[in-house]
Amino acid sequence: MLAKNSRLAAHNRAWFAERSIVTINLMSSPGAGKTSLLERTIRDNGAGRQVAVVEGDQETVFDAERIRDAGARAVQINTGAGCHLDATMVRSGLDALDPDRGDLVFLENVGNLVCPALFDLGELRKVVVISVTEGDDKPLKYPHMFAAADLVVVNKTDLLPYVDFDVDRCERDARSINPGVGWLPVSTRTGENLDAWYAWLQEL
Amino acid sequence: MLAKNSRLAAHNRAWFAERSIVTINLMSSPGAGKTSLLERTIRDNGAGRQVAVVEGDQETVFDAERIRDAGARAVQINTGAGCHLDATMVRSGLDALDPDRGDLVFLENVGNLVCPALFDLGELRKVVVISVTEGDDKPLKYPHMFAAADLVVVNKTDLLPYVDFDVDRCERDARSINPGVGWLPVSTRTGENLDAWYAWLQEL
Repeated sequence: MLAKNSRLAAHNRAWFAERSIVTINLMSSPGAGKTSLLERTIRDNGAGRQVAVVEGDQETVFDAERIRDAGARAVQINTGAGCHLDATMVRSGLDALDPDRGDLVFLENVGNLVCPALFDLGELRKVVVISVTEGDDKPLKYPHMFAAADLVVVNKTDLLPYVDFDVDRCERDARSINPGVGWLPVSTRTGENLDAWYAWLQEL
Repeated sequence: MLAKNSRLAAHNRAWFAERSIVTINLMSSPGAGKTSLLERTIRDNGAGRQVAVVEGDQETVFDAERIRDAGARAVQINTGAGCHLDATMVRSGLDALDPDRGDLVFLENVGNLVCPALFDLGELRKVVVISVTEGDDKPLKYPHMFAAADLVVVNKTDLLPYVDFDVDRCERDARSINPGVGWLPVSTRTGENLDAWYAWLQEL
């Protein structure tokens, strides 16, 4: 199953490259703030180019509606009992999305810190969003996700005064698994440090 | 795979029944507060009987250590790349845990709002913990988990002033999927409404 997925992911990757489309696989636990981060990025034109989104959820079209309200094209994939997007689902999502040349396409995965780590979608970068309300022990408890990531976005920093979350410990643990991983604390609510996220996007 | 798991879960269920052991499969997203709820329950003797815990995580023994520090027996199962506990893992965990007759055994699942919903472990009750920081749209987006649950514990109510979370909407959505499901807002941090959780446990 994984080998078949990898072959189809390679097709996706070639399809993106031919069209100069940059693609990010966005992963997190449920409710860490992936969609909020995208809404804000779209409204601020933080990517500096047109954004389009493939949304993955077990059920509902809520997230695609939120993205469209923010001003970008979006298609919703419902995985039913499935726990992650795979390369085939992304391929069919792209047919419906029909992104333009040079777009930045986000593949917003099902909220799950486990299974999505194993499935290549053909993306250029993997970004994992964690929130400070989840606890600082997540990198060591879910190492596959953090080993696979290019960048960790630590969201909801506005809630740091109200929770026990040691940002330095969490960063140290994430880097013990993946020394080169990027690390970006932000608040999508207050906008804190989103400039650094936008700068990261614009360098892709 | 699911059929084999169901057969083994039936064996577990019979084993529990012979020993008058009550078993709860505790599920949630990563960081919703399952372990904190158990720590507090053990320290308060909220169950009114001896508690023992099978802990499931991809990696680390952090959670089993926290449970032991709180004063209960615990064994840690590491699932590696696996995204949920299954009946076989629970069986081997029970061999190591060796619970006493009449114990309350918690099976704390891997943090994941998707896959654990599909795997019967032989438990008497399924409890899903969500936290108010995850957003109130989770029941409709992850319906399998909420359809399977006997009780929803809504944790971190102390953070309600700082987040957008409509408790009534969330309850309504959960009951639209599962009309009979129990609903219990609590804060493991402040202790708010834990008496109701303890009362629920003591009626099992």
